[in-house]
Amino acid sequence: MNRKRKGITAERELLHKFWKAGWACVRIAGSGSIKYPMPDVIASNGFKQIAIEIKNIGSDYKYFPKKEIKELIEFSQKFGAIPFVAVKFSGKPWLFLSVDDLKETKQGFAIQFENEKAKGFSFEELIEFFDKL
Amino acid sequence: MNRKRKGITAERELLHKFWKAGWACVRIAGSGSIKYPMPDVIASNGFKQIAIEIKNIGSDYKYFPKKEIKELIEFSQKFGAIPFVAVKFSGKPWLFLSVDDLKETKQGFAIQFENEKAKGFSFEELIEFFDKL
Repeated sequence: MNRKRKGITAERELLHKFWKAGWACVRIAGSGSIKYPMPDVIASNGFKQIAIEIKNIGSDYKYFPKKEIKELIEFSQKFGAIPFVAVKFSGKPWLFLSVDDLKETKQGFAIQFENEKAKGFSFEELIEFFDKL
Repeated sequence: MNRKRKGITAERELLHKFWKAGWACVRIAGSGSIKYPMPDVIASNGFKQIAIEIKNIGSDYKYFPKKEIKELIEFSQKFGAIPFVAVKFSGKPWLFLSVDDLKETKQGFAIQFENEKAKGFSFEELIEFFDKL
């Protein structure tokens, strides 16, 4: 699978998980190609909207470009959503990180599964957290 | 232009208008083909999100299928958005109708430019209305 195809597959997997959990979730058309800052996915429980940038990660890629995270924050402010990054390391469950929990480095915003696990939410924890608000 | 292509062109036109007005706006991938109820577009000024079903209308087509409107309402409730229909009659400016203002008939929800104009918002009126809330 090429990178683009792999990305769409991950977005669809997450879409189904949110709907199954009783949330509404949409994939954004043209995110990454259009001139406006846009996330990959927006999910909502009817009260809180979250804007999500998705990353499928192999062992060789552990950074988000700064531009990507800054645009996610910019979009979220304009839309009225909470910015999150959903990370999928191969063979691991989805990990949701608040952008505040990413570590800014020279190369970009760093994420590593073992380091960030404590700070991140699993899918179930994310749902529970926002449904209780 | 075929119907699908025409639909995407209308969605993009609206997308640019919202961003130009200072709103965030996204086109939804797979709306109309995926099993979940989804609008064509979601726009937001950071406080109110509106879910929009778009219709390009020739003189021969003046109905929204009931299923389409019911799904727009269903999605909006789940997402926490306000459901609107954006209608584009050829040669006329965009007209925004609240789903409450559509007339339910046997064939579906009826819209006619002359009849509905008084009830609908122009693009500028829509922006002004929500930005003042």
